[in-house]
Amino acid sequence: MLRKKRVVIALGGNALGNTLPEQMAAVKITSRAIVDLIEEGCEVVVVHGNGPQVGMVNNAMIALTHEDPEQPNTPLSVCVAMSQAYIGYDLQNALREELLNRGITDIPVATMITQIRVDADDPAFQNPSKPIGKFVTKEAADELARKYDYIMKEDAGRGWRRVVASPKPVEVIEIGTIRTMVDSGDLVIACGGGGIPVIHQGNHLKGASAVIDKDFASCLLAKELDADFLIILTAVEKVAIRYGKPDEEWLDELSVAEAERYIGEGHFAPGSMLPKVQAAVDFASSKEGRQALITLLEKAKDGILGKTGTRIHM
Amino acid sequence: MLRKKRVVIALGGNALGNTLPEQMAAVKITSRAIVDLIEEGCEVVVVHGNGPQVGMVNNAMIALTHEDPEQPNTPLSVCVAMSQAYIGYDLQNALREELLNRGITDIPVATMITQIRVDADDPAFQNPSKPIGKFVTKEAADELARKYDYIMKEDAGRGWRRVVASPKPVEVIEIGTIRTMVDSGDLVIACGGGGIPVIHQGNHLKGASAVIDKDFASCLLAKELDADFLIILTAVEKVAIRYGKPDEEWLDELSVAEAERYIGEGHFAPGSMLPKVQAAVDFASSKEGRQALITLLEKAKDGILGKTGTRIHM
Repeated sequence: MLRKKRVVIALGGNALGNTLPEQMAAVKITSRAIVDLIEEGCEVVVVHGNGPQVGMVNNAMIALTHEDPEQPNTPLSVCVAMSQAYIGYDLQNALREELLNRGITDIPVATMITQIRVDADDPAFQNPSKPIGKFVTKEAADELARKYDYIMKEDAGRGWRRVVASPKPVEVIEIGTIRTMVDSGDLVIACGGGGIPVIHQGNHLKGASAVIDKDFASCLLAKELDADFLIILTAVEKVAIRYGKPDEEWLDELSVAEAERYIGEGHFAPGSMLPKVQAAVDFASSKEGRQALITLLEKAKDGILGKTGTRIHM
Repeated sequence: MLRKKRVVIALGGNALGNTLPEQMAAVKITSRAIVDLIEEGCEVVVVHGNGPQVGMVNNAMIALTHEDPEQPNTPLSVCVAMSQAYIGYDLQNALREELLNRGITDIPVATMITQIRVDADDPAFQNPSKPIGKFVTKEAADELARKYDYIMKEDAGRGWRRVVASPKPVEVIEIGTIRTMVDSGDLVIACGGGGIPVIHQGNHLKGASAVIDKDFASCLLAKELDADFLIILTAVEKVAIRYGKPDEEWLDELSVAEAERYIGEGHFAPGSMLPKVQAAVDFASSKEGRQALITLLEKAKDGILGKTGTRIHM
């Protein structure tokens, strides 16, 4: 039997929505796109972001301390863990339902609580830059900074937000279990929100006040699982150079060498397309035959069939 | 090689504490007791309760709606999911650390988000009786009832609390994945808080406003995994008849027939020792050779060696 193509898919924010009702609607559409890939013969592993969700959980835990002062504040790492369950529960159910609706009854769906080790010396800890949670007033920002040591930054006139470090993922702690599950044919949701960031302290894993970019986390997971494809889903169908300019150009293919040149020339926006292209390049250059694809959620199937999206290869 | 004894262990509330700092301390002690069993040659699967924790998460999500009125209320089933991650993340880390501290490097630890199907016709839905969350005033209780359709009950002069249904578990949705993981030698945390209660609606699983008793959930899981032992850990070393009376008697052994007689005679308190004895009887009577054990967390190892606790057998 032909070995199935192993695909790690990284879902962007639009695949999940911003509130629970939005999430419950969005995961249905997301599940159709994922089960399309399964019907094309792919073995799929799902990674998702958690920007709005971990912010919401963080806000809820803070709101609880206002109503119940005996309640200690909850570390961000615990909020990330909770966001994995908040999203995974809905997403795994939508996937299960879509599989059953198409008569596919032999693929169990499961959500793994996943920790990812980061390096305590990662320079990102010296320069927290990833905004999470909602915008607040200057007064509220000052109080959060004073009370919880949060680092708050003003964001383009829209108010103040907490910023946290976004270190690079180094090791998926639960990789052995995830591999067992994927090898046995399960559809696994793992490394949700980029994984719970933890730091080694001897045999202890200490939660870090950080969030890991889900594109980098999915790249690491794809390499560890020896995947054939890393699919990064986002809000555009293809990667562009000279984006937004009169001579912008949408790319069908991108070699690692070209991509590195375009990165150097500043074609991709930091915090947006840049980490996606970087993760794609990292994966595609890690081993002969590995390819990455950047496209829209609803084009994932066409993308894997070579009809659209931007394919990044060695 | 001798087949390892497969043990499902149900952790009571005292194994986890009531707040995050308490939890982080408690899981260390809990992990020692569990790894003791592993060193005795057992293959362990861990189920835990979530009474205080799901109440806390539920309160946090309500507190968030007070500060951000656009935020919809979060269903109890989602709160149960979040509590599985909140507890599992700490517990799996403490277990991992305890294993490594003892030089055991070949047992991965993993937390599975687990749903358990309940019956929509379960009579428990007609008579919600399980209190969750904190005590509130009559005024606050009336507001919760009006705003969210919560059923609030006065509890012995201590205030008002939300009560929810506690239906019987029927089917562990993720049993296939859990079995794969356990068979491959992982130390699995599953069915946390008794599992996320869901109801079949065709291919869809709908979250139920309920919590499942973790003793009944662990009994179901133990049967499904064909375990040899169900260990229910609680605040007493043994089960007693005529508990608290001058002629109270602590039991080393209890046959299924005796247990059923004592249950009929009302020896065990509902919501406390009764469900534990019922779960133990259910498991011990389900197949030749299966035994249940009720004891203290710190006596689990002595219990499995036959030195203490109450052993329930056919």
